[in-house]
Amino acid sequence: MNSFGRIFRVSIFGESHGDGIGAVVDGVPSGMELSREDFESDIRRRAPGAKGTTPRKEADEIEILSGVYNGRTTGAPLAFIFRNQNTRSGDYSQFEATPRPGHADYVAQVKWEGANDPRGGGHFSGRITLPIVAAGVIAKKSLGDIDVSAKIIEVGGEKDGSRWASLLEAATAEGDSLGGVVECTVDGLPIGLGEPFFDSVESLISHAVFAIPGVRGIEFGDGFQAARMKGSEHNDLYGEDGYPQTNGAGGVNGGITNGAPLVFRVAFKPTASIARAQKTWNFKTSKMDTLEIGGRHDVCFALRTPVIVEAMAAIVLADLL
Amino acid sequence: MNSFGRIFRVSIFGESHGDGIGAVVDGVPSGMELSREDFESDIRRRAPGAKGTTPRKEADEIEILSGVYNGRTTGAPLAFIFRNQNTRSGDYSQFEATPRPGHADYVAQVKWEGANDPRGGGHFSGRITLPIVAAGVIAKKSLGDIDVSAKIIEVGGEKDGSRWASLLEAATAEGDSLGGVVECTVDGLPIGLGEPFFDSVESLISHAVFAIPGVRGIEFGDGFQAARMKGSEHNDLYGEDGYPQTNGAGGVNGGITNGAPLVFRVAFKPTASIARAQKTWNFKTSKMDTLEIGGRHDVCFALRTPVIVEAMAAIVLADLL
Amino acid sequence: MNSFGRIFRVSIFGESHGDGIGAVVDGVPSGMELSREDFESDIRRRAPGAKGTTPRKEADEIEILSGVYNGRTTGAPLAFIFRNQNTRSGDYSQFEATPRPGHADYVAQVKWEGANDPRGGGHFSGRITLPIVAAGVIAKKSLGDIDVSAKIIEVGGEKDGSRWASLLEAATAEGDSLGGVVECTVDGLPIGLGEPFFDSVESLISHAVFAIPGVRGIEFGDGFQAARMKGSEHNDLYGEDGYPQTNGAGGVNGGITNGAPLVFRVAFKPTASIARAQKTWNFKTSKMDTLEIGGRHDVCFALRTPVIVEAMAAIVLADLL
Amino acid sequence: MNSFGRIFRVSIFGESHGDGIGAVVDGVPSGMELSREDFESDIRRRAPGAKGTTPRKEADEIEILSGVYNGRTTGAPLAFIFRNQNTRSGDYSQFEATPRPGHADYVAQVKWEGANDPRGGGHFSGRITLPIVAAGVIAKKSLGDIDVSAKIIEVGGEKDGSRWASLLEAATAEGDSLGGVVECTVDGLPIGLGEPFFDSVESLISHAVFAIPGVRGIEFGDGFQAARMKGSEHNDLYGEDGYPQTNGAGGVNGGITNGAPLVFRVAFKPTASIARAQKTWNFKTSKMDTLEIGGRHDVCFALRTPVIVEAMAAIVLADLL
Repeated sequence: MNSFGRIFRVSIFGESHGDGIGAVVDGVPSGMELSREDFESDIRRRAPGAKGTTPRKEADEIEILSGVYNGRTTGAPLAFIFRNQNTRSGDYSQFEATPRPGHADYVAQVKWEGANDPRGGGHFSGRITLPIVAAGVIAKKSLGDIDVSAKIIEVGGEKDGSRWASLLEAATAEGDSLGGVVECTVDGLPIGLGEPFFDSVESLISHAVFAIPGVRGIEFGDGFQAARMKGSEHNDLYGEDGYPQTNGAGGVNGGITNGAPLVFRVAFKPTASIARAQKTWNFKTSKMDTLEIGGRHDVCFALRTPVIVEAMAAIVLADLL
Repeated sequence: MNSFGRIFRVSIFGESHGDGIGAVVDGVPSGMELSREDFESDIRRRAPGAKGTTPRKEADEIEILSGVYNGRTTGAPLAFIFRNQNTRSGDYSQFEATPRPGHADYVAQVKWEGANDPRGGGHFSGRITLPIVAAGVIAKKSLGDIDVSAKIIEVGGEKDGSRWASLLEAATAEGDSLGGVVECTVDGLPIGLGEPFFDSVESLISHAVFAIPGVRGIEFGDGFQAARMKGSEHNDLYGEDGYPQTNGAGGVNGGITNGAPLVFRVAFKPTASIARAQKTWNFKTSKMDTLEIGGRHDVCFALRTPVIVEAMAAIVLADLL
Repeated sequence: MNSFGRIFRVSIFGESHGDGIGAVVDGVPSGMELSREDFESDIRRRAPGAKGTTPRKEADEIEILSGVYNGRTTGAPLAFIFRNQNTRSGDYSQFEATPRPGHADYVAQVKWEGANDPRGGGHFSGRITLPIVAAGVIAKKSLGDIDVSAKIIEVGGEKDGSRWASLLEAATAEGDSLGGVVECTVDGLPIGLGEPFFDSVESLISHAVFAIPGVRGIEFGDGFQAARMKGSEHNDLYGEDGYPQTNGAGGVNGGITNGAPLVFRVAFKPTASIARAQKTWNFKTSKMDTLEIGGRHDVCFALRTPVIVEAMAAIVLADLL
Repeated sequence: MNSFGRIFRVSIFGESHGDGIGAVVDGVPSGMELSREDFESDIRRRAPGAKGTTPRKEADEIEILSGVYNGRTTGAPLAFIFRNQNTRSGDYSQFEATPRPGHADYVAQVKWEGANDPRGGGHFSGRITLPIVAAGVIAKKSLGDIDVSAKIIEVGGEKDGSRWASLLEAATAEGDSLGGVVECTVDGLPIGLGEPFFDSVESLISHAVFAIPGVRGIEFGDGFQAARMKGSEHNDLYGEDGYPQTNGAGGVNGGITNGAPLVFRVAFKPTASIARAQKTWNFKTSKMDTLEIGGRHDVCFALRTPVIVEAMAAIVLADLL
């Protein structure tokens, strides 16, 4: 379903090349100041333009349809829309015969029996993350002093940021793409958020994060490395200030926030659409074929995702608070 | 909350050292044959006894309270309970002053203002996974020919199973504990399961899996490694049989099953309760103290989790089908 | 919350005098033909203009934002909006001091601490039923041959339709208003809809119907009269054709449809806004005051509600099917 | 589904003649005193024994399985069960051929394809209201000073209680049954409960109340009578004390509590099982037949329902608070 959250609930809609994309956010606290300017910074962080990102540019101006009156939220559902303008639908016609590997072209065709909108990935487009970022802005505002902050910590397997530019250039030159890892930290959380058994903080965060297209993994605190540690290494011991001295648990015990920073990392796959020709099966001719994907794509879309990961974390936490 | 699922819904209850633990499973298809014997094998797989697992033994006999008539499910909610018998509550009294690191003792005390049941971890006990396993048995039955199968693939960082026995012995001798990684594979899934945007297959599986105590990470297909691959390496190309020739996506595209096996891995931390003394803060004396945890614990509880991971996957898939 | 439904889910938004009102409908079957013309007839049935209804006129043209491609539903969320145009916000300024009796002015002010949009009742306006009617059109289409049909059967306590015109004229002349009763019948339902215990057909229908502003009661089959009958009178006996010969149960047994027509009646209160002066308390001056409500209002808004009741029934049934 | 509530969530299970019936209540506030004695009074109010009620007697002793520790609620799910003892399953064998009119025998057989438990109505039995009453006790405790109180105000169409005994005697003598009307009043509610649009107070209360077997209608405040009043008669005007002087709205405006007592009435049909022979269709012989229902039944089960109505109201309000 296209909704998330129990109290602070986000419902998204829209297709990449349709009239527009947007969301309805229910459960927004009333009386919160909110203007179009509040959205600008985060929308810009998600926008393409930097090295390694797609040259497709949208105005990405938010139109708030309801839920705000005299510059303040009313408590009624807040709906907004972004119009799609810069669309070149012609690019996508061939993918019924040769579905793009790593995309949902094929499964969407089967699931909706050919009725889905194939243009630009339709409802599966990465563009659907734009209303998520906007909902995240509202969520962050509702969190007050709690700080949600994500950044990319690895590109193409490289942790040293000084080497990323050359990796991106090389991948572009090869017509190939790169993945990346994003780390998100949340400071200022109270003790006690999270509802065991099934609504642990990790359950809710991972549920939301895996909705972002292209996520392959998520880990909290010491993460996969924890499986290789001993208990005496991984346990967070309380020290003389009454606080844990390490944060191997990533801020969560038994599914409940423990007052330490919430820390998690998200693995993004390399962009599926690459400039290089790919050998694939043609479902119409029933022969092997060569697929060349035109259109405009990120070499490493992971670069644009930290603000999306932040938004998802903020939406989950706004719902829990 | 303690419920999971939209149609096939599992609600769990119980504490480690209370009268019993159990679950109510709603949305079970009617007319399905079900007897107490169906539960035995999976319950045994979760039970302690093997090297590296706790010597606490429970009869673990399921008592079905409702929803079955003449050996078949009725379509009404199926409730069952496991009585707790082999409890030694005296073991747990000291942890109000010196909460066990890596456990929920401290956060539970704060969240429920001291009203929680501290005995054996109360509602946070790993014992709560017993009704999950039982619900998983029902879910697997409802899946028919779909095969859900998990196994441990790494113990204490070691992938070679021939070396696990000696690692476990060494950890036991040191009074320490080990973590592990479990891999789950689901064969026979139809194309089209999963509901984008927010209810992708990965979202639902990870939501359920992170409810299992001690999980630190989850990844699908190539997982975290995907972030270090190029698009040309990670993309699953269709071959001459019309099927993808690789499975880097782990059986999911755009959140929807693509007909290939669903593959994911789960990282479990080392057991938090270790036999060794640990330096910690004493909240009553406001001084540093030494914590010694008695009771009976697994050296590597991850060894007992494959059947729990299977159960969670089966519950999610039963709900989607 | 502003969402309803588990599978076929409607989320509404908008205020009477804001930019617009609309809804997102999730879970719409894919491949269903749908055009703007499909909405016209039901929207017209809800529109004012007939005797006893408000002279406020809106173009009420639906703008579909997503979920339709090449004239067919895609399976992705279907969002639509109606722009507000004919608004006279000045009418509503006085109601902070003297909240209109029978309206939500006062409770909304308290609940949202004055941040709510008071213009035209804001999110509480009867205008919010317009997107409900549109969602109902989609739901009805998805129901195929099942026929949902409601009509007004009582105005101002009078069941004889030939006398309604004079009653409405008299009420208009007196500056007063009238209530009414609507009866809804659904033909062609299969046996077995409804999920006991808590999601009985009556539970879901009444939940949805009581969301319509101004509803005071609902009854199924023999309704309140059943409480005055004997078992031998109220029981629906099976006859020689194997079908019940009466329908005192209104088509539902044990919360589940029984194959007979679903029949229920809804009581609507008289329009709260009347032309007459009303004595009331002034919360600003702390004195008794006289409230005169300008603006444009229905003498009997119940006349416009049958299509809304139909929409709610169709939404519930589309969700159950 | 067999669950109700978003935060304070009740999940019921059990059949009339199975091992037992019970419920899991999630979201109970922690630290609330709770003992088995707290349940006695309400369980007794629901129990048979008074004139006009069934002679079937159960011990009806609650067994609390989890969620209570040292006499106080822990914040973990509270599960309880009532064992079934006094069952005579032989009574129910004939109803596959001649389903009882007014019961769910027939629809349950169709819906669950014959796999349902037919004994005593199985999961449809009125006995399922026993765990509802128990959940209501917990809900009422959590409401603190808010008082929920229901009573029967009409039996067999008669409002004068002095005449009920003779009506009941006459119906018993005739082998027939009677219906009744219950009125529920809730005092002490704060202003602002209820979440428009779809979760109005009336929507939630009616949803829960229509889950009680045998309900045919519900109305709030002036109810169906409101449809026959003029706006000038039905509107609740504010008086010199700043409070409404009447309560035609039944304590709710725009779906939100307004501080006045919440008042609603529920119509219960006459008991479906009557001692008299009834002509009906025999689905096995395909001929008309005469149905004689043995077993033990209430002449007027409505007499036992006020405490059930209270429970449902309390469960809804506990969830909203």
